[in-house]
Amino acid sequence: MSIKITGSGSYIPTRIVPNIDFASHQFLDEEGKPLPYSNEVVTEKFQQITGIEERRYVTGDLLTSDIAFYAAEKAIEDAGIDPETLDYIIFAHNFGNVKEGAIQTDILPSLASRVKHSLRIKNPKCVAYDILFGCPGWVEGVIQAMAFIKSGMAKRCLVIGAETLSRVVDPHDRDSMIYSDGAGASIIEATEEEGGILAHASTSYTYDEAYFLFYGNSYNKDHDPDVRYIKMYGRKIYEFALSRVPQAMLDCLKDSGIAITDIKKILIHQANEKMDEAIVQRFYKLQGQPMPEGIMPMSIHKLGNSSVATIPTLYDLMIKDILPGHQLNKGDAVIFASVGAGMNINAFVYKI
Amino acid sequence: MSIKITGSGSYIPTRIVPNIDFASHQFLDEEGKPLPYSNEVVTEKFQQITGIEERRYVTGDLLTSDIAFYAAEKAIEDAGIDPETLDYIIFAHNFGNVKEGAIQTDILPSLASRVKHSLRIKNPKCVAYDILFGCPGWVEGVIQAMAFIKSGMAKRCLVIGAETLSRVVDPHDRDSMIYSDGAGASIIEATEEEGGILAHASTSYTYDEAYFLFYGNSYNKDHDPDVRYIKMYGRKIYEFALSRVPQAMLDCLKDSGIAITDIKKILIHQANEKMDEAIVQRFYKLQGQPMPEGIMPMSIHKLGNSSVATIPTLYDLMIKDILPGHQLNKGDAVIFASVGAGMNINAFVYKI
Repeated sequence: MSIKITGSGSYIPTRIVPNIDFASHQFLDEEGKPLPYSNEVVTEKFQQITGIEERRYVTGDLLTSDIAFYAAEKAIEDAGIDPETLDYIIFAHNFGNVKEGAIQTDILPSLASRVKHSLRIKNPKCVAYDILFGCPGWVEGVIQAMAFIKSGMAKRCLVIGAETLSRVVDPHDRDSMIYSDGAGASIIEATEEEGGILAHASTSYTYDEAYFLFYGNSYNKDHDPDVRYIKMYGRKIYEFALSRVPQAMLDCLKDSGIAITDIKKILIHQANEKMDEAIVQRFYKLQGQPMPEGIMPMSIHKLGNSSVATIPTLYDLMIKDILPGHQLNKGDAVIFASVGAGMNINAFVYKI
Repeated sequence: MSIKITGSGSYIPTRIVPNIDFASHQFLDEEGKPLPYSNEVVTEKFQQITGIEERRYVTGDLLTSDIAFYAAEKAIEDAGIDPETLDYIIFAHNFGNVKEGAIQTDILPSLASRVKHSLRIKNPKCVAYDILFGCPGWVEGVIQAMAFIKSGMAKRCLVIGAETLSRVVDPHDRDSMIYSDGAGASIIEATEEEGGILAHASTSYTYDEAYFLFYGNSYNKDHDPDVRYIKMYGRKIYEFALSRVPQAMLDCLKDSGIAITDIKKILIHQANEKMDEAIVQRFYKLQGQPMPEGIMPMSIHKLGNSSVATIPTLYDLMIKDILPGHQLNKGDAVIFASVGAGMNINAFVYKI
């Protein structure tokens, strides 16, 4: 028995927001003082580091659970399965549903329950729950699906990652340009085919790192202190990720028995292009290898960082051959890896 | 190998709030009209149905993750384990951290990450995540811990249920009297002892039921429509629970191989005394049995409904022999069962 992704879907929001749209923002530093550069300089530097040219936001009528439903519908159709045969719906997010213009997170009922409701699934034995695990939530959902399958508690699971970060960004924080909205969904199931998940790794670094990503106040000190936004210590995260993610990927690779030279692609969380490149470079360096050209598909330029949604969306674009130069072919060995709030790091090695 | 609860802890908030404290509330119906009874009558009827005389609220300085940490510390101490040996911290809640006087849910980072941080655990392989599964979240966390243990991914897990519902109640809704705050935590691990979890059941009813419990507006129509509170269709939930929970418990019991006459106690989610009694009565009736006296320990009279926290707290009171007449002895077969938002129902049969 192997555990494979047998269907995939994604929802890419329709509102395209180019960097120029931040031209009129009043960017402040942590102390509330204006940045000592023009927005043009800020945006240019931002693009150089992150690779992000534009990002996608949902329209005002949509919620995280809505776009998750769209992605889930496509994954079910792609797998060609009867949704009533699903044993689990595992939904990874970090902010729940936040209505446009409102500040409350709505997670009652769980977003997984809402998606199951929208899918019109009747089978009560299809268990629907949400997990909160930072950006690595979708990868962790896949690992949990694997646990249920291995333990005999499930055969087929729907794992969703969806987020609408546009609803939780501080307009005065230049980091707000990183974040975007999106949804990806996958069917994970036991099959008789070869390949699938060969090894996995999952870690939570909380001793010093728990609050590197957090819910904090606006940099505009006149704002209500009871209203909070997604905030991060970017430098600390960069250093943390660079020191921990390559080793985690390598440990996972060793467990898989696959040689580093046989890895065809690395699907890494689309957090920041320079950081992702540095991580993958160091991963190869740990094994005395140069980083192969074209090993790291990127969707961040056009889609930004949609948290839990980046990896399943990237996989969806690749498996459907929409990302030029990054096809996935039967038998290819790839690594999925993520890092984010918690701080959590996880990965799995997978044979298509 | 068996999977057992090897340590237990709970935190019972210090603020005692008797029913009389609601005497000055202006209770309204869904339409926003005053209830046609005095608050004295409302409160009396409330107490007759739910059994709740008083409830516990946390003090203003505490958050859900704080009281979870207190319960977790006690569970670790009770088990006599080194916290660095934990493979998972699974934290069930439904509203995250909500500060007193504020309306935002804070779930970044996850509450499990915060508890792990407070416990000063360094081991990164201790994976910390949150699940959202309505009131049955703690029971579901135990089932997930079981899956990790069975699949070989874990040996020892900390499962927490904590909630501060006092922060999300509508003061104009008489249902607000039901809700309370609390935290319970348990160590779940693989042991060579006899007994442990013998069978489990888990279900999500979402087709018609997804929104029976939801985040909705105040009954006071003058309130900001973007501020929402925990809301429920009590009658629908009662009927749903009565028609589904007894059968789920029975299915689980049959899987366990234990005779109904050998069940010593039923630890049911402390939702509402009349509803809980009706569920347990029907459970016995399905097998042509009378409901045995003293089968259903209740903590609701003094502690109210603290959602995910009720069952681990009840277990903690019983295993530490603090609940008169409800001792648990080695070899006793008991049922844990819960129902709540989702709508989710789950249960496990357990031998002490």
